[in-house]
Amino acid sequence: MAEDRSVAVTERDLRVATGSAARGGAPLIAHFDDSTPLVLDCEKSLAPFDIAYQTYGTLNADKTNAILICHALTADQYVASEHPITGKPGWWVTLVGPGRPIDTDRFFVICSNVIGGCMGSTGPASINPTTGKAYGLEFPVITIGDMVDAQVRLIDRLGIGQLFSVIGGSMGGMQVLEWAASHGDRVFSAVPIATAAWHSAQNIAFHEVGRQAVMADPEWRGGRYLEAGASPRNGLAVARMAAHITYLSEDALQDKFGRNLQARHSKTFSFDADFQVESYLRYQGSTFVDRFDANSYLYITRALDYFDLKTEHGGILANAFRGTKTRFCVVSFTSDWLYPTRESRAIVQALNAVAANVSFVEIESSKGHDAFLLEEAELFATITGFINSAAERHGIAPAREAT
Amino acid sequence: MAEDRSVAVTERDLRVATGSAARGGAPLIAHFDDSTPLVLDCEKSLAPFDIAYQTYGTLNADKTNAILICHALTADQYVASEHPITGKPGWWVTLVGPGRPIDTDRFFVICSNVIGGCMGSTGPASINPTTGKAYGLEFPVITIGDMVDAQVRLIDRLGIGQLFSVIGGSMGGMQVLEWAASHGDRVFSAVPIATAAWHSAQNIAFHEVGRQAVMADPEWRGGRYLEAGASPRNGLAVARMAAHITYLSEDALQDKFGRNLQARHSKTFSFDADFQVESYLRYQGSTFVDRFDANSYLYITRALDYFDLKTEHGGILANAFRGTKTRFCVVSFTSDWLYPTRESRAIVQALNAVAANVSFVEIESSKGHDAFLLEEAELFATITGFINSAAERHGIAPAREAT
Repeated sequence: MAEDRSVAVTERDLRVATGSAARGGAPLIAHFDDSTPLVLDCEKSLAPFDIAYQTYGTLNADKTNAILICHALTADQYVASEHPITGKPGWWVTLVGPGRPIDTDRFFVICSNVIGGCMGSTGPASINPTTGKAYGLEFPVITIGDMVDAQVRLIDRLGIGQLFSVIGGSMGGMQVLEWAASHGDRVFSAVPIATAAWHSAQNIAFHEVGRQAVMADPEWRGGRYLEAGASPRNGLAVARMAAHITYLSEDALQDKFGRNLQARHSKTFSFDADFQVESYLRYQGSTFVDRFDANSYLYITRALDYFDLKTEHGGILANAFRGTKTRFCVVSFTSDWLYPTRESRAIVQALNAVAANVSFVEIESSKGHDAFLLEEAELFATITGFINSAAERHGIAPAREAT
Repeated sequence: MAEDRSVAVTERDLRVATGSAARGGAPLIAHFDDSTPLVLDCEKSLAPFDIAYQTYGTLNADKTNAILICHALTADQYVASEHPITGKPGWWVTLVGPGRPIDTDRFFVICSNVIGGCMGSTGPASINPTTGKAYGLEFPVITIGDMVDAQVRLIDRLGIGQLFSVIGGSMGGMQVLEWAASHGDRVFSAVPIATAAWHSAQNIAFHEVGRQAVMADPEWRGGRYLEAGASPRNGLAVARMAAHITYLSEDALQDKFGRNLQARHSKTFSFDADFQVESYLRYQGSTFVDRFDANSYLYITRALDYFDLKTEHGGILANAFRGTKTRFCVVSFTSDWLYPTRESRAIVQALNAVAANVSFVEIESSKGHDAFLLEEAELFATITGFINSAAERHGIAPAREAT
């Protein structure tokens, strides 16, 4: 795909990125051709490849005000602009935008679709140039490290040496940690939110259920559903339903739904969605399949399960951050049982062990893991405070409105 | 099915139950014909119906030493004898047997397969007499109350007026609560373990995922897979995998598997079961489908979701037990997140509110919900102490060995 695209488009990319497209919406693609393959952790190479991204705000002359936002498992580059498929507002629009805690009047915000994803970056639904068909399971298994390496290419392409900050929640937080561990000199500050330095047995278990649900669907067709014009919708919906439970706390489910019945006065004694929570989950499953590729779900969950900064650094997590000059702000939520506070505490302890500059906030919330996506005042206050003080240290001018 | 069986077999049943079959293994069936239909909560009637059961030990002359064991979602009547399909020992053989905490040298133990089940009691895989085909989704939706009503019929048939004790964990514990609430005069003592008086939104959510996984499997064929010679094996396996995660604590998964690889030294960068926890879950899923009927899984999970003793008693759980003379021993486990201790505490508070005789033990265990099935010394000590003291009050002679 797209072999005819220009390769050496650094300056044009930058103009596009900081110009009209900065107002959001228009799809941006950084294309990398056969001459610059992405060498993956599995020792295979990916070439050519595309990175789809969005930017918001304007890069300053010194290129010191760039913030990279890393997205979670099923999100994408539309962090602060309308999603082209669902028509919904950006997934972190309350946090990122003009006058927001991550103020696009002050910072140049970049968000790219991860490699392996399905919103424009090369993934299993992309065309394999050696076969002319969608990769399917011929796509190499990718890691969080590979996702970050692809982002490094994008940042290089945009001519940015050091990012002022890398920020992300959940899988986005893992990318933040990977950036700090592998490219620390390019990260002035880092904000890993509601995340972990390795996937636990329970995390892996839930993902394996999701993968098996997808692969159990005959419409998955051994991963070759695209060329058959098919889609493992049912399996992917079940995977999403199971995962969705882990994103909410038990209290959040209880507060939101309890045992309330869905638009009926009494139980139907059938397998209809009698309870609101059943109806809600079915809706979550069915809407997800309209916007997400099943094989991407397999690949990205696999990348998460493989993530283990500790083992990769000789069994000592602190080794991942030895000598770091990055300033960290680690955030967890009390009711998050997917990546509980103890996982963040392990990160903080490792950072403390190497005398890193780290602040740690455990935010009281009843909303579970998804709290990081919601309007949590304490999260916003934490990020605002951290970002503003780091920006001052970094010599970034306040927003024009504020001057 | 079995229309030719004798109906008025009380004395013969009793001889069989307390005689040779008491040594375990031989299948016992109580058949109830068209003249005595089971009137269900859904207001439909089930007739004829069978209750498959096992007994252990000998009923004493006064018929005062009978203990009913109620099984959990996927268990059956083989509580203390070899399972005829898997060849495995009884599911509670460490707790029930000669010289065990529930001593079959002293007590007459009865365990029956729930109505809706698939191990001999009438369920969706049974033949619908009006069509001559398996019920499938024509089987009426049943409740925990219906399961208990069927057990009442069995106890009547065995000529037992009052049970010395009703004991069960998980769904078995719900049946215990239902017995105490609806047939309190027939229950001298009750031991609900690792259970709840109603299903929470999160409980319902997990079950709904399982049901959707089954129904998403095209081999489910709208519930008519039996007559098609098919089986929704993949869907049912996924349902079992998701449920299985909820039976173990995160710590148990971590202790048992952590991030250990399965019979390999490094990650394969594939979708194979690299991690032990993946391999374990796949095994749990695949073995389950050999012994369990998919429609039974739908019906029994539905019965659990519908369970709500509080709402059934005007929104005040204590009303379920008002005036009770039953002696209760409520047991929970610290690491059980399926039915956490607070659910047991709600039961205890309701019992206290009506001045019931209740003891409550929260057992320290890292094993999660399944702790009730495992050799937990404190559980055994708790049950032994409670049963022995209750038996003394009830005038049941010590085991012959001890006299």
